Amino acid sequence: MISFITSNKGKYVEARAIIDGLEQKDLGYTEIQADTLEEVAVYGINEIMARLKEPAMLEDAGLFIEALGGFPGVYSAYVQKTIGNEGILRLMDGISNRKAFFKSVVVYSEPGLEPRMFQGIVEGQIGHEARGSSGFGYDPIFYVGEKSLAEMELAEKNRISHRAASMRALDEWLEGR
Amino acid sequence: MISFITSNKGKYVEARAIIDGLEQKDLGYTEIQADTLEEVAVYGINEIMARLKEPAMLEDAGLFIEALGGFPGVYSAYVQKTIGNEGILRLMDGISNRKAFFKSVVVYSEPGLEPRMFQGIVEGQIGHEARGSSGFGYDPIFYVGEKSLAEMELAEKNRISHRAASMRALDEWLEGR
Repeated sequence: MISFITSNKGKYVEARAIIDGLEQKDLGYTEIQADTLEEVAVYGINEIMARLKEPAMLEDAGLFIEALGGFPGVYSAYVQKTIGNEGILRLMDGISNRKAFFKSVVVYSEPGLEPRMFQGIVEGQIGHEARGSSGFGYDPIFYVGEKSLAEMELAEKNRISHRAASMRALDEWLEGR
Repeated sequence: MISFITSNKGKYVEARAIIDGLEQKDLGYTEIQADTLEEVAVYGINEIMARLKEPAMLEDAGLFIEALGGFPGVYSAYVQKTIGNEGILRLMDGISNRKAFFKSVVVYSEPGLEPRMFQGIVEGQIGHEARGSSGFGYDPIFYVGEKSLAEMELAEKNRISHRAASMRALDEWLEGR
């Protein structure tokens, strides 16, 4: 059994479809201010492992927009909660470079094992308008090809999503050892 | 002697003008992701006090814009580094409620003393353009009355600034005990 440390039921459901033997644990952990998702994730898992003497994983993700110097990046959740998609569209108004990527970092550890990191990335574009109603967060303004992530069926999104990719990478590593 | 834990020489110079017996120590500490400056400051000073067995203080500050749900708030430094003042002006384009405040939180501790917090606030407005060249960060777009903070002489800014206010509050407490 692996404890997935998250308060987000949706993330857990997504992960469980890929990795066997997961269990959600809403333990809470310190998220630090840092330049990278990796630093946030490793700090978090080390704190968790000091309390929990069993296999555990957690995940952190963000949206990185090239023309905005990587904003909102590590602080994507906070930015979504405050200025939201409308704010991002305003910031991108008149900017022709719309390149962006979503990145997910999963970190896994167990007693006696240094944390192992796995990542998934999906490249796309910031659209000129929000479209679609599935998914959540930045999905309606993040386009891969002609469609926003919020216009995709869950199965289609899961084929390309950054989170599915990082979870699959962890799953392969778990299966392979 | 009190150690002011900061990598920012400007902050130190500002503080030294108000509080006697300060010494800058660029030790570095963990800044957590949190909803409030207070949480960030207390976590930081507790970490410092576990390493440094002497009187110490640190400071955290942010700009809180009412119409943007308090954005950029705790993450003001990151937002300044990425989207900058131009980004804030874009986000505020067409918004008539320009109310904002700067807040500074100073936290002081010494062996055997629970951290003590002091705050300073300056209320103002987000302007429609950046003006002035003194100061740094958000100063050119933050107006108190007719002038932006970046159009003020240092002495004038220090009379009203959030950081000067929190430093004076600490100074008064230190003098008074």
